Amino acid sequence: MNRIQRALEALVERVDTPAPVVLADVLQDNIDRMQAFAARHNLDVRPHVKTHKCVEIGRRQVKGGAVGITAGNVGEAEVFAAAGFHDIFIAYPIWPSGTKVARIRRLAETTRLRVGVDNAAAIGALADAMGADAGRLEVMIEVDCGARRSGAPAEAAGDLALAARHRGLVPVGVFTYPGHGSSGPDARKRAADDQEAALTTAVRSLSAERITAEVVSAGSTPTVEFSTGSSVITEIRPGEYVFNDLNNARLGACTEDQIALFVAGTVVSDWVPDQVILDIGTKAISREGSPEIGYGAIPGTAAVLSRLNEYHGFLPLPAGGFRPRIGTVLPIVPNHVCPVVVNFEDYIVTDSTGTSLQRWRIDARGFLN
Amino acid sequence: MNRIQRALEALVERVDTPAPVVLADVLQDNIDRMQAFAARHNLDVRPHVKTHKCVEIGRRQVKGGAVGITAGNVGEAEVFAAAGFHDIFIAYPIWPSGTKVARIRRLAETTRLRVGVDNAAAIGALADAMGADAGRLEVMIEVDCGARRSGAPAEAAGDLALAARHRGLVPVGVFTYPGHGSSGPDARKRAADDQEAALTTAVRSLSAERITAEVVSAGSTPTVEFSTGSSVITEIRPGEYVFNDLNNARLGACTEDQIALFVAGTVVSDWVPDQVILDIGTKAISREGSPEIGYGAIPGTAAVLSRLNEYHGFLPLPAGGFRPRIGTVLPIVPNHVCPVVVNFEDYIVTDSTGTSLQRWRIDARGFLN
Repeated sequence: MNRIQRALEALVERVDTPAPVVLADVLQDNIDRMQAFAARHNLDVRPHVKTHKCVEIGRRQVKGGAVGITAGNVGEAEVFAAAGFHDIFIAYPIWPSGTKVARIRRLAETTRLRVGVDNAAAIGALADAMGADAGRLEVMIEVDCGARRSGAPAEAAGDLALAARHRGLVPVGVFTYPGHGSSGPDARKRAADDQEAALTTAVRSLSAERITAEVVSAGSTPTVEFSTGSSVITEIRPGEYVFNDLNNARLGACTEDQIALFVAGTVVSDWVPDQVILDIGTKAISREGSPEIGYGAIPGTAAVLSRLNEYHGFLPLPAGGFRPRIGTVLPIVPNHVCPVVVNFEDYIVTDSTGTSLQRWRIDARGFLN
Repeated sequence: MNRIQRALEALVERVDTPAPVVLADVLQDNIDRMQAFAARHNLDVRPHVKTHKCVEIGRRQVKGGAVGITAGNVGEAEVFAAAGFHDIFIAYPIWPSGTKVARIRRLAETTRLRVGVDNAAAIGALADAMGADAGRLEVMIEVDCGARRSGAPAEAAGDLALAARHRGLVPVGVFTYPGHGSSGPDARKRAADDQEAALTTAVRSLSAERITAEVVSAGSTPTVEFSTGSSVITEIRPGEYVFNDLNNARLGACTEDQIALFVAGTVVSDWVPDQVILDIGTKAISREGSPEIGYGAIPGTAAVLSRLNEYHGFLPLPAGGFRPRIGTVLPIVPNHVCPVVVNFEDYIVTDSTGTSLQRWRIDARGFLN
């Protein structure tokens, strides 16, 4: 019996399903292991809180040695700033409009705030938003390294940093996200190499404008293992490593024993032969996966959710395998953990032995803008 | 310019993105049209609140003539009961464990409560949960009509109703969900025919046990148009019709002008040729769709979100078409609206002219068990 099944067995009478269950000891091991890895390679860790959105977990990351946190939007930054986090990087090409103008100003008053920019229009809008306080806002130039998502070409980083400085903002460095490293096990090293090349070019581009990139920030749980020995990278921004998930296990970025979160669900119907229905649908586990790999799996078995409706998960039963009865509670490990946490108010927190049981609030759930 | 674009233009300065925007006049038209349809065919409407999870919208549905509401789980029922709704059907094969035992008892004290059952174990567990108050709990027998999800075979409905009666519960009828009617435009009528056949068999099965099916309850937005002229159906439980979405438009179950909800997003990056990035990712619009049809579309254009990350939506720009600048706010209509609403705290409510602007709370967001 694996850790997850042991933990579930111990808490099964005390949990209402569907519910996200966190194994606190596995989570702490994941935090400590990432921190030790970074220390060995002389890298700062600035974990991305989008994965957990939980103040308690953020505190554990900082206590473990993180230099600050990464957020995905203004709302997340606000929740963590209100909880006392005072070094926050919004790693996103912010466009300050509506209430965001005032909210970014307020955040910059109470915390050391960095925001991402990848274009001149946003630099102008941020400078306008900050007015005379532009010097309170640190900016990081986002460059693309192959994900073809956001980020300027690395050669353009210097121009953007200079434009920010001219407007009174404080350019402190460059960042990128090697998202193309998640496309398969072979892609991880290649994306990390792309990242190294782009960041090196970006740093040179800043130097050419006589701007020092004090911070050179890299992703990500799947690629971090290959981001060592860099001559430029100063920090890493992994997110998923706290929980891990099936996608990371498939990529080789974690083992199954390092997965710290599952969704507990109950068998509610079993009329269709060789299938049971769980109370885990898209509104609990999100539609992350595909018909080919399914939408979440029972650890240590071949059973995967093959289809999801909103409140129903379809679980085909492998031939000759177990056949859980109505009312049985089962653990489902998600393919991609980040979109799961936004579905719930609280984590049910236990450990591998199932002896402790707490709730941790998912504080920044929602807060999407 | 269509309704959605006109409404967005009027409110663009006043909305923080990403945000779900509701056109109240289109919504009201949708409510009134469904009610008029049902009245013509002598059917009760018991709308499924999982689609909107919003007390204000539920009130409009009841004011429009709905006989009560349908919920997907105990938590949704609790939120609406607390807001004064007193006729609630949880159309789900409930398994009462953990706190659900006490919660179902409490609900049955304060509201007329019906719950779905499809198996003998759940009937026993519900009867145990209710104890001496079993007579306060109405049960509806769920039968399958081809979706192969939950629901007993229609022929087994009588046995289950009898088992419920023997345990002191009150069997009041049968229900089914013709989910296979969403697989394509041709599937709608076929699924409605399957539904009619299954419900007819189920009613006969109850009659054979001398139990009258007072309520014979059918789905669903895509199939409701074909559920007329039935000799058995007494009520319909559509959900999506209040908002509608691209999936329903593709199925022919609504027109594009009848879509009452879109997600407003801002262009935040535009470095990749023929593509812009919006601040609408999976955490805002959910991964509903496929690489083939995309994950949401700008109404009246060929532009669809082709990929989603958590906070990023990839919008390829059709050749020769418009090229929105950084900061432009665009409307994205979801493929499937129900999983979108759980991502946000409030709807931004306006109308086709954009003159009014309110917020309606998404009261039952979360409440997953």
